[in-house]
Amino acid sequence: MTPATVRVPIRKVDGQFTRLQEDILAVEEPLEIRVGSRSLSVTMRTPGHDFELAAGFLFAEDIISSASQIRGMTNSGPNIVVVELSQYAVIEPPPSQRGFMMTSACGLCGKVSLESLAANRCPVLPLRDLRVDAGVIHRLPSQLRQRQDIFESTGGLHAAALFNPQGELESLREDVGRHNAVDKLVGHALLSFRTPLRDSVMLVSGRASFELVQKASMAGIPLLAAVGAPSSLAVATAERCGMTLIGFLRNGSFNVYSGTACIAGLERPQ
Amino acid sequence: MTPATVRVPIRKVDGQFTRLQEDILAVEEPLEIRVGSRSLSVTMRTPGHDFELAAGFLFAEDIISSASQIRGMTNSGPNIVVVELSQYAVIEPPPSQRGFMMTSACGLCGKVSLESLAANRCPVLPLRDLRVDAGVIHRLPSQLRQRQDIFESTGGLHAAALFNPQGELESLREDVGRHNAVDKLVGHALLSFRTPLRDSVMLVSGRASFELVQKASMAGIPLLAAVGAPSSLAVATAERCGMTLIGFLRNGSFNVYSGTACIAGLERPQ
Repeated sequence: MTPATVRVPIRKVDGQFTRLQEDILAVEEPLEIRVGSRSLSVTMRTPGHDFELAAGFLFAEDIISSASQIRGMTNSGPNIVVVELSQYAVIEPPPSQRGFMMTSACGLCGKVSLESLAANRCPVLPLRDLRVDAGVIHRLPSQLRQRQDIFESTGGLHAAALFNPQGELESLREDVGRHNAVDKLVGHALLSFRTPLRDSVMLVSGRASFELVQKASMAGIPLLAAVGAPSSLAVATAERCGMTLIGFLRNGSFNVYSGTACIAGLERPQ
Repeated sequence: MTPATVRVPIRKVDGQFTRLQEDILAVEEPLEIRVGSRSLSVTMRTPGHDFELAAGFLFAEDIISSASQIRGMTNSGPNIVVVELSQYAVIEPPPSQRGFMMTSACGLCGKVSLESLAANRCPVLPLRDLRVDAGVIHRLPSQLRQRQDIFESTGGLHAAALFNPQGELESLREDVGRHNAVDKLVGHALLSFRTPLRDSVMLVSGRASFELVQKASMAGIPLLAAVGAPSSLAVATAERCGMTLIGFLRNGSFNVYSGTACIAGLERPQ
């Protein structure tokens, strides 16, 4: 298997002084996802967990709703995953009209008009009594960082992680594309028959864009937290879905952009 | 015109104490790019400079090579740009086979197989005697940050900027998607008949992925610098193109991942 990092010779410049040294890069390579003989998507990703990535992508795109709709997955070379679906799974609309394509930071591909974009599924989450203590939320980023193996060595990867309501890290994935990290994470849960993730908290290492909220809502995740800033559409989508969206989670503080029902242990606004 | 930022009410949590306040978000909205009646792409972008974005996208995708191939651009609603091409511009392959789609962090859409991805154009740059002093390079990030109006207020935007060899900032664009910021920047140069940018330095605020190197090579830019880490494919592509690629440009140091011919004023490696 292609490794997730690679060593390269570089020139390190401090002021005007240079020295030769080695650096570690995050690997970025294309992965083609096929369903049968049809090419659905090419995403620029970090190799590893490719079956999870394919499963999570098909799930987020509403092509499958359960692992039981996957008959099997095989590699056709290092950068192609071929998914065989059961007869009950249908690709709708047909891929010839979608032409999926993603790069290392893209996760919502294949819609070629604003109408189809608006129709992209962001289901409203059922009301749940999930309660996560604010103190637990404050501690999530340090746990993420402790487990981000590849980021530590390259500084070049996004991470996404799932936690239980007690703040225990259950799974983590890293990738050059944050949407890929989320697809791998959700794909892993899907293939373990653990979706919908109604009692899970997802933390992402960077900013929260529309696509991450969309993927989290498809997975049933009631609380999404980001270390960075959310976009306007991420906030609007989270509100529509009934999702609690947290941003700027770092250094003992965070901003709540939508929903507060999930968060326990807070003093009332002053 | 839709503004680039929007104010929203949030709950700010410090420890367990919350207070209501306002926050400023970067706006993320879809933009559909049409050529005539054909929908080529939907990208999640920050509104503003949409004509530049459309022009830069068509240029990076090798659909046009000069502004003279654009007969006109019009808005069809706030989130649709319609480009009319001259009779000499051809869309190849036809968009029905490409199905462009981009999100806020995706810039290389429409290729649906590994073969077409490999064929994506990354032209080899002509040898030039561009020389930029290392001291000039060290000063680029502070200039970028001083001019990043929207990032300062939202913390949520990528920026890309062009500098001359003396390190003077010539233009800057911001967007939720870094590929959009680059498309806007190159589109602005294209519409000013200033491409190829053979004497320009481009700085991007985040990481350097394959797609950014590809776009820079199409624009003829010999020196690309990133504040963050490059990916393996970004480095390999820069080497193939003969581009100087700098990463981790901050705090008085940087790493040179490919090419050193452009950089003056360096002491030899010790």
